[in-house]
Amino acid sequence: MLNKNVQTFIACDSEYEESKIVLFGAGFDGTTSFRPGTRFAPSAIRNDSFGIETYSPYQDKDMEDYSYFDSGDLELTFGSTKRVIADIAGRTDTILNDGKIPFMIGGEHLVTLGAVMAVSDKYDDLCIVHFDAHADLRDEYLGQQLSHACVLRRCHDIVGDGHIFQFGIRSGERDEFRFADEHTDMHLFNFDGLEKTVRMLKGRNVYFTLDLDVLDPSIFCGTGTPEAGGVTFDELRRAVTLVCSELNIVGCDVNELSPVYDQSGVSTAVACKIIREMLLAIS
Amino acid sequence: MLNKNVQTFIACDSEYEESKIVLFGAGFDGTTSFRPGTRFAPSAIRNDSFGIETYSPYQDKDMEDYSYFDSGDLELTFGSTKRVIADIAGRTDTILNDGKIPFMIGGEHLVTLGAVMAVSDKYDDLCIVHFDAHADLRDEYLGQQLSHACVLRRCHDIVGDGHIFQFGIRSGERDEFRFADEHTDMHLFNFDGLEKTVRMLKGRNVYFTLDLDVLDPSIFCGTGTPEAGGVTFDELRRAVTLVCSELNIVGCDVNELSPVYDQSGVSTAVACKIIREMLLAIS
Amino acid sequence: MLNKNVQTFIACDSEYEESKIVLFGAGFDGTTSFRPGTRFAPSAIRNDSFGIETYSPYQDKDMEDYSYFDSGDLELTFGSTKRVIADIAGRTDTILNDGKIPFMIGGEHLVTLGAVMAVSDKYDDLCIVHFDAHADLRDEYLGQQLSHACVLRRCHDIVGDGHIFQFGIRSGERDEFRFADEHTDMHLFNFDGLEKTVRMLKGRNVYFTLDLDVLDPSIFCGTGTPEAGGVTFDELRRAVTLVCSELNIVGCDVNELSPVYDQSGVSTAVACKIIREMLLAIS
Amino acid sequence: MLNKNVQTFIACDSEYEESKIVLFGAGFDGTTSFRPGTRFAPSAIRNDSFGIETYSPYQDKDMEDYSYFDSGDLELTFGSTKRVIADIAGRTDTILNDGKIPFMIGGEHLVTLGAVMAVSDKYDDLCIVHFDAHADLRDEYLGQQLSHACVLRRCHDIVGDGHIFQFGIRSGERDEFRFADEHTDMHLFNFDGLEKTVRMLKGRNVYFTLDLDVLDPSIFCGTGTPEAGGVTFDELRRAVTLVCSELNIVGCDVNELSPVYDQSGVSTAVACKIIREMLLAIS
Amino acid sequence: MLNKNVQTFIACDSEYEESKIVLFGAGFDGTTSFRPGTRFAPSAIRNDSFGIETYSPYQDKDMEDYSYFDSGDLELTFGSTKRVIADIAGRTDTILNDGKIPFMIGGEHLVTLGAVMAVSDKYDDLCIVHFDAHADLRDEYLGQQLSHACVLRRCHDIVGDGHIFQFGIRSGERDEFRFADEHTDMHLFNFDGLEKTVRMLKGRNVYFTLDLDVLDPSIFCGTGTPEAGGVTFDELRRAVTLVCSELNIVGCDVNELSPVYDQSGVSTAVACKIIREMLLAIS
Amino acid sequence: MLNKNVQTFIACDSEYEESKIVLFGAGFDGTTSFRPGTRFAPSAIRNDSFGIETYSPYQDKDMEDYSYFDSGDLELTFGSTKRVIADIAGRTDTILNDGKIPFMIGGEHLVTLGAVMAVSDKYDDLCIVHFDAHADLRDEYLGQQLSHACVLRRCHDIVGDGHIFQFGIRSGERDEFRFADEHTDMHLFNFDGLEKTVRMLKGRNVYFTLDLDVLDPSIFCGTGTPEAGGVTFDELRRAVTLVCSELNIVGCDVNELSPVYDQSGVSTAVACKIIREMLLAIS
Repeated sequence: MLNKNVQTFIACDSEYEESKIVLFGAGFDGTTSFRPGTRFAPSAIRNDSFGIETYSPYQDKDMEDYSYFDSGDLELTFGSTKRVIADIAGRTDTILNDGKIPFMIGGEHLVTLGAVMAVSDKYDDLCIVHFDAHADLRDEYLGQQLSHACVLRRCHDIVGDGHIFQFGIRSGERDEFRFADEHTDMHLFNFDGLEKTVRMLKGRNVYFTLDLDVLDPSIFCGTGTPEAGGVTFDELRRAVTLVCSELNIVGCDVNELSPVYDQSGVSTAVACKIIREMLLAIS
Repeated sequence: MLNKNVQTFIACDSEYEESKIVLFGAGFDGTTSFRPGTRFAPSAIRNDSFGIETYSPYQDKDMEDYSYFDSGDLELTFGSTKRVIADIAGRTDTILNDGKIPFMIGGEHLVTLGAVMAVSDKYDDLCIVHFDAHADLRDEYLGQQLSHACVLRRCHDIVGDGHIFQFGIRSGERDEFRFADEHTDMHLFNFDGLEKTVRMLKGRNVYFTLDLDVLDPSIFCGTGTPEAGGVTFDELRRAVTLVCSELNIVGCDVNELSPVYDQSGVSTAVACKIIREMLLAIS
Repeated sequence: MLNKNVQTFIACDSEYEESKIVLFGAGFDGTTSFRPGTRFAPSAIRNDSFGIETYSPYQDKDMEDYSYFDSGDLELTFGSTKRVIADIAGRTDTILNDGKIPFMIGGEHLVTLGAVMAVSDKYDDLCIVHFDAHADLRDEYLGQQLSHACVLRRCHDIVGDGHIFQFGIRSGERDEFRFADEHTDMHLFNFDGLEKTVRMLKGRNVYFTLDLDVLDPSIFCGTGTPEAGGVTFDELRRAVTLVCSELNIVGCDVNELSPVYDQSGVSTAVACKIIREMLLAIS
Repeated sequence: MLNKNVQTFIACDSEYEESKIVLFGAGFDGTTSFRPGTRFAPSAIRNDSFGIETYSPYQDKDMEDYSYFDSGDLELTFGSTKRVIADIAGRTDTILNDGKIPFMIGGEHLVTLGAVMAVSDKYDDLCIVHFDAHADLRDEYLGQQLSHACVLRRCHDIVGDGHIFQFGIRSGERDEFRFADEHTDMHLFNFDGLEKTVRMLKGRNVYFTLDLDVLDPSIFCGTGTPEAGGVTFDELRRAVTLVCSELNIVGCDVNELSPVYDQSGVSTAVACKIIREMLLAIS
Repeated sequence: MLNKNVQTFIACDSEYEESKIVLFGAGFDGTTSFRPGTRFAPSAIRNDSFGIETYSPYQDKDMEDYSYFDSGDLELTFGSTKRVIADIAGRTDTILNDGKIPFMIGGEHLVTLGAVMAVSDKYDDLCIVHFDAHADLRDEYLGQQLSHACVLRRCHDIVGDGHIFQFGIRSGERDEFRFADEHTDMHLFNFDGLEKTVRMLKGRNVYFTLDLDVLDPSIFCGTGTPEAGGVTFDELRRAVTLVCSELNIVGCDVNELSPVYDQSGVSTAVACKIIREMLLAIS
Repeated sequence: MLNKNVQTFIACDSEYEESKIVLFGAGFDGTTSFRPGTRFAPSAIRNDSFGIETYSPYQDKDMEDYSYFDSGDLELTFGSTKRVIADIAGRTDTILNDGKIPFMIGGEHLVTLGAVMAVSDKYDDLCIVHFDAHADLRDEYLGQQLSHACVLRRCHDIVGDGHIFQFGIRSGERDEFRFADEHTDMHLFNFDGLEKTVRMLKGRNVYFTLDLDVLDPSIFCGTGTPEAGGVTFDELRRAVTLVCSELNIVGCDVNELSPVYDQSGVSTAVACKIIREMLLAIS
């Protein structure tokens, strides 16, 4: 007898019970104002993950030695942002209640809000580490408060002052930078100060949200709003390894890959490799 | 002294007062479930319209002999479908109140709803002629009633039984075809019966909505949900000329071009040429 | 508890026991001489199958009313053609032994050889219906007998004279056409004569192999060796429906989609729609 | 000892002395007003010609049975249109003086002027058969008389009234159609009337210029100014075969392929196949 | 009443009278020898400028606080290089005479010649700062003196020895480097020496011409002649900020973006961001 | 009389007898497991080599001052790996026997095996310098020993322990890194240690194999298996110059360019420039 076709991120086909980390896809891009397409990221990432190795020479670790579970994609409703966020919070909640770490693959950055809502319900005093080219701190965008451009502002509504640590930021309205001066810990352009932040956050509950457009578009052009002047792959690789291995990650996401804008496939390959490094570092 | 850069559809730069037809763009694709990108259609159409001629050898008419006005694009809010539809209805209403014919360039097909709301407010007993590959008659789609897949169903809510005439339909759920059996006049696959319909609708107020994916994707691959088995360019050209020259068009739209999926630019060129033929036929 | 991510062709997620038709992918293109890439077809087809409907207005049938099973892709060895063919024969054999119909998605056309080997082992007096732009009747190609350009010649080695019926052929070496004059029933350029062939083959065991490049490249440019002058989508749709509904299909395949050469996605959408029509017609 | 790498159109590697037809490339697009790129056509055509067969099942003839010579590309000066035309006339002249037929691969359509200048010097009472989407009859374009949009007008300056026969025309300014009414024999949209024209021109010296954009862009999107509503591949194939086999062709060209606009390669494959049919029909 | 569609570079919609800097587009690529396409740059840059912010965190300045005017594109004649240069000189002259700074968006690099002619007419002892991958110092190219490959040589004819300062050069014929040894101040590969040059040029009239291919093609692949080994975005950003804020810029241009070669849109986004930084630095 | 069209890498058109270095293409990708397409590299490289200059400002040398010969591509058999390797060995042998240096352009990396077989037959104690992202040290891959993933392992079978020097490696199975610990001299991630290796190998016979995916995919995305985290163009340029100018190169190859995955053409331009630097450094 034959089996139905199962497709997971490479080496994420363990049994649910034995897996500490559970992946799911949230391919939503309904508030994207410039160039949509992140909805296709989860499936592209699964497909192309078989082009990378399970072994990392950087960490000298192999995914085959750990257990991961890929629970597939949420089926999300375009046209109703609130319901999308609720659905994401629901899946996150399920995974948390089973004592596991949710690892979400977006979608646009707004998906983070659903996950943060669920994680902050469960964990007190949640801190957020945020890598991004964009501040994402607007109070509203084109009249909407639930927008990818407002997502960290909405997270700030939840976790409050002093709980958000931003790195790599190089784009936004002037008001967002003014807001950051008072309410978040924002590091412009690169990862300067990350080691100090990591030392400070040690032992606390941390949600890690990675907007891949923090990378320079030379290595990651497959995104809706490319911003030149970003970090290199090796800088990002080192930074995510540091955050994921040193901190108590209680949930995380990787977002804003838009595969259609990179015909070469490099952006998707980069996303796969960063996810591998994160999975290995958390383990 | 120099002038600010004005960009219009080719030969649509007359004065507003003297123009009978007024174009505007509604680049919304917020409920698109499969492949987004129609938001870029209005600007792509304006850009590439300078690759076609103003003279049509088919109709032996020249756009230079008539007056058209291009009022630019609405700035639409992604994330709030209702507000988008209200904004479209507002612009349509303004144009109607000035005694002109609104000619909208989408965007996804849902934009039609805003225009039909405004037009049906002004004109009694409005009929809708609808060319499309898809029935668009679902009552809801992924839990939403305001979806591109439901747009003709929502129009039916407004204009009622016997007022919608559909041509070229070749895709949908079984229930949509059942609904059409009772509530609309649906012609499958091609334009068979169009001449009879045109004779029947003569003198009545007609809104004409053209989903360009009624075309076969061989000539129009730049669309979100390509459906093979469509009509040829010449079949569509003849059909739009018939509808626009013989009927009393009180409003119309052309939608569902998604330029990014056609790297060759042919789909945009096709849209431009069809719009030219419509503008000339209405004049 | 969450489930592992299952990915199948749309509506092919019934249980194995209750399914009469079993799909599998054979993404091999190791002998492709011009432009490779068909190895990516099975996964592209699964992904994009969710862009089509399960209901066919052409046949007024819905896939939801039948049971299909998608058993995933064979993992094939590049560099050893013989072993690839053996692996395909093995999977085909398993499906046949369970009393089901194998439905293979290629890959280059050579994959047909593996399936025909297994099917001809089980069914006496097997006939082959072959739609293609190319004759595929060379005895060897660049020194190899196991080549996509030789696949029907190898099938002829198995089923012998008078058992192969070819349609749509418009390319080949002169010798291939000479061979066809004596050994196969070849119909040039289109489907002329297909109805007669179908009447003649009624009740016999038929393997149906569809090289999608029989289509004109205007509607199917995503293939390694595009040959202008092919059939339209509607001609092919009618022809496959005729063959699959009227004949006793004991196995079949669809091959030669190379998604990377069609950035618009239309070719993959066409493949999905043809597969749907075949699945519905066989049922 | 090894040989330098020779690259020719497939099967065009005979010796110069024994070849009746001599190919050369004129990759000039310096006056192209909309989308340039035809400069890359000659090399793309040579490269991809190895994807087609030398045998034509349409004519039952094989290029291997005849002798053709490919003399490579002219090195043309961008920025000086006059000199380009002179260089083309020079190469054409050389080939004519050796008693052979020049077969030029463009480049934009203006290249035809150089060839027609040389051919009309040698042959009295030259007639021109012209397949194209565009009339190309402007007296000047953006202030220039040497423009692709004026090329047939310049040819008319040379051969005069009643010597130009145009087919497939579907785009131009109104004045060009008026000019054609008085000075050329223009057939709109398709090949209606071609058989009669061919009968009339029998025995006379004919230059044949084929602008490939006469094809519908569904099968030929790789061109600078795509015009929907063109002829099918089979219509063109039949028409070129008729012209080339029945008339006394003393020179010809194929132009306006712009490979970069067709990522699938189909347009180049179409050009190769049409060139093969022309070469076989002239032989 | 509605307004005609105005399209400008983001935030460049002030009134002409109040604007110190006036943009215009010169989309000419008629002498481009390798891969054309820069003609599409001005319109692509306007379109995509709405994907960036008006605020620069690098300079902590916002375009909304200044006045800029975008006067649209020149309509240029392909086929007559001299007339193109005259038209560019004309527009430049108009802007200069109104006491404003011309900011030209090319087009190929030859467009600089027209601007430099006008600027050097008005300003004595003009110096040129030139960032580029290519020396552009040939005396003639393929027989033409008015070629993109000769543009700085032609500028040297105007401004003479010691007035041209070149940075980032990494490609050219040997003779161009020999010429530079004697007549210009050429800095190979990067911006070494720029600070010293800026100190030296303080207070003098400077025309600044930026060929964007000075950037490494990893971040700027959308150009006709990509040359690996270029500067990073941050290096360029710092260099243009230095030049534009410290020197007396009396005219400038940004050229050689060819959008069609970068399907991701990153190159256009990079151009937009650099233009923003230049506009802010000059203000 | 005209000449047949000759196409070579730029400036590689000297006579065979006078040329010390002889190029040939081996466009084989038959064992490529992920994304094929390197078969098109040799012809793409020849075509685009005319976009670079013959003069290198890095080495201050001009190809015009030396003699190179391009002997064209091997016609290879897809489907029979052994025969392909034998054909490559044959061509390499011919060149070696004429006292020249073979310079092969792949193709996938497996082509190196054929060349190394021939070179090691002629030269005792052969050492191999290997730049690559991948270790390529598997003993078998998908059941095959003749695979691109095993090529250096097969070379090790020939040259033995201590004769292979690997740089830039950043991907592989754990076992490959374990094998390298014992049998090769592997340098992870970059060129650290290259100068020392060069000093050590001085005077010995060296085969140099360059897998271009050692480059970071930001500058080289046109490859089958892109691996982020690679070296920059300048790092590679310096490294190949060092190896080729300081060591006794008796054969070399450049492989794994897959042009179809880089629509911008940058990857091919990079390959051309690196080949130029290698040719100049060896001379």
